[in-house]
Amino acid sequence: MNPIRVVQFGLGPIGQSCIKALLQKPGLELIGGIDIDPQKAGKDIGDICGLNKPLGIPVRDDGAAALAEWRPQVVLHTTQSFLDRIEDQLTMIIRAGAHVVSSSEELFYPFHRDPGFCERIDTLAKQHGVAVIGTGVNPGFAMDILPLCLTGICTDVQKIIVTRVVDSAQRRLPLQKKTGAGLSRQEFEEKMNTGRFGHIGLRESALAVIDTLGCPVDEIVESVEPVIAEREMTTQFLTIEPGQVAGMRQILRVKSEGQERLVLNLEVSIGAKEPHDSIEIIGEPPFSMRIDGGIFGRTATIGALINTIPKIIAAPPGLRTMMELPAPYAFLA
Amino acid sequence: MNPIRVVQFGLGPIGQSCIKALLQKPGLELIGGIDIDPQKAGKDIGDICGLNKPLGIPVRDDGAAALAEWRPQVVLHTTQSFLDRIEDQLTMIIRAGAHVVSSSEELFYPFHRDPGFCERIDTLAKQHGVAVIGTGVNPGFAMDILPLCLTGICTDVQKIIVTRVVDSAQRRLPLQKKTGAGLSRQEFEEKMNTGRFGHIGLRESALAVIDTLGCPVDEIVESVEPVIAEREMTTQFLTIEPGQVAGMRQILRVKSEGQERLVLNLEVSIGAKEPHDSIEIIGEPPFSMRIDGGIFGRTATIGALINTIPKIIAAPPGLRTMMELPAPYAFLA
Repeated sequence: MNPIRVVQFGLGPIGQSCIKALLQKPGLELIGGIDIDPQKAGKDIGDICGLNKPLGIPVRDDGAAALAEWRPQVVLHTTQSFLDRIEDQLTMIIRAGAHVVSSSEELFYPFHRDPGFCERIDTLAKQHGVAVIGTGVNPGFAMDILPLCLTGICTDVQKIIVTRVVDSAQRRLPLQKKTGAGLSRQEFEEKMNTGRFGHIGLRESALAVIDTLGCPVDEIVESVEPVIAEREMTTQFLTIEPGQVAGMRQILRVKSEGQERLVLNLEVSIGAKEPHDSIEIIGEPPFSMRIDGGIFGRTATIGALINTIPKIIAAPPGLRTMMELPAPYAFLA
Repeated sequence: MNPIRVVQFGLGPIGQSCIKALLQKPGLELIGGIDIDPQKAGKDIGDICGLNKPLGIPVRDDGAAALAEWRPQVVLHTTQSFLDRIEDQLTMIIRAGAHVVSSSEELFYPFHRDPGFCERIDTLAKQHGVAVIGTGVNPGFAMDILPLCLTGICTDVQKIIVTRVVDSAQRRLPLQKKTGAGLSRQEFEEKMNTGRFGHIGLRESALAVIDTLGCPVDEIVESVEPVIAEREMTTQFLTIEPGQVAGMRQILRVKSEGQERLVLNLEVSIGAKEPHDSIEIIGEPPFSMRIDGGIFGRTATIGALINTIPKIIAAPPGLRTMMELPAPYAFLA
């Protein structure tokens, strides 16, 4: 079988990690990179990724022309989170006849947030015979696909409680910053009011779970609060003073037919105690799953994206979700 | 949407539990039961399941005629474990134009054990436009689908270690007996030599995982040993004396390209200490999952079967596997 021809769209930290993972898989062939940054265009992808050797794989900033020339089967898209920021990029990729696997959090389950976007992308993808999907670790796995998968052996599910506690001390600066690390409490509140701050995708995870189980939604209640440092903490990038924000705690609760059906607890903070992922199913049979230490999100995001490539090729054309595809198994070749 | 019309084939303990679960789901309509036991034929399904009231749903022992009359969309098949024992039953159901969801352990991943069977069932199912699948909790979930699902976020998987420890004290007598409880050590060895004793499906789980990851198989090493009671133990059904067999421990190891890639540890014994399910992924990212107390197999088997009904209707015709379908989410209506 010929390797799947892949273009990486977006050469930020996530995109660069995707490239390193792509290069390890004989079943995937990286044929080019696209980035709007003129500093990157024209360079070799190996140089941009700090691989100490050129790979003979070019980076271009003229996306449509590059795609027309390269004709990839799949574009791995890692640029932005929000649907309105990525629509033009997705449209360009679809018109070039390539399937899309994207890290956009909102694209994981975009149907409630922007039905018009979904209609346009779905129609265009079907016209061009390609499939489009958003995935990652969160949303995409830890707080949606994995809990759903655990319900697969339940004759009844009364409630699901998912908790993810991430110690962001070892993570990248953007993650620390987007969860408020280093801000004062007041700055945190101000940022929150912009509406584009904090973890993106908790609502997408919740709606994906609830809709897939077939529960009607009465009400979604979401709360966000800062986690305040009790002592001085220093990471590779930041020093947090006592009283400053170390991160955030987001809780989302879904009520269905008068009953609380789903609780998603997410804490991402520097120095978070007992980082872990846990899922409790209150149902038949009742059981709880725990991953001590938690799933390391940065690598897991890359894994989720890469492993979806062979599945998106086999998927029916249109805007797809991870709930429709086979569970996202790894492939080793 | 009209409810899915389902016939229950096999009215043993698992079949009866399926019926109780089916009756809870408005999206499923139980229209009949089939069993070869002449004591059951002609009775009402409610009476057979001990529901204290007739349901107006008949049980028949003339399978082909009953299916032709009832015309179910799906048959839930819970009779036997072995391919050679179920082939005639599957053939009858497929000829009646119904999809099959079966609890047969060997049917979960039958390709290595009996390619001829697979060819015949696949061809016939395609001729009749129906899909056939085997599932359950083990095989079907705990030691195959769930570990595979966890690899979905890995960029690399070096090795997977799955452990399932079940305390069979609270389980049904057939499970206690088929894992050797109450035998002497010598009787246990003799039973083992018959080749149809112990947990069925460990090899199916292993091959499903390994093939799905894309690893070639060098060697599979399987071992079984009795778990010997150290003290007297009494269950609802049995009293085990010290020195007698309390259960069994099965270990299966798969080597691929010179490297041990998969270890499945299964202990099922009366009084087993610290019952649990755990999965360790040695890869990128590395992580371990644990379910303290373990997944309660009896209910979980029913859940796996019931939840697969809506998916098998949407699957392409032929002999299918759980790895091809969307992960087996619960549905609540």
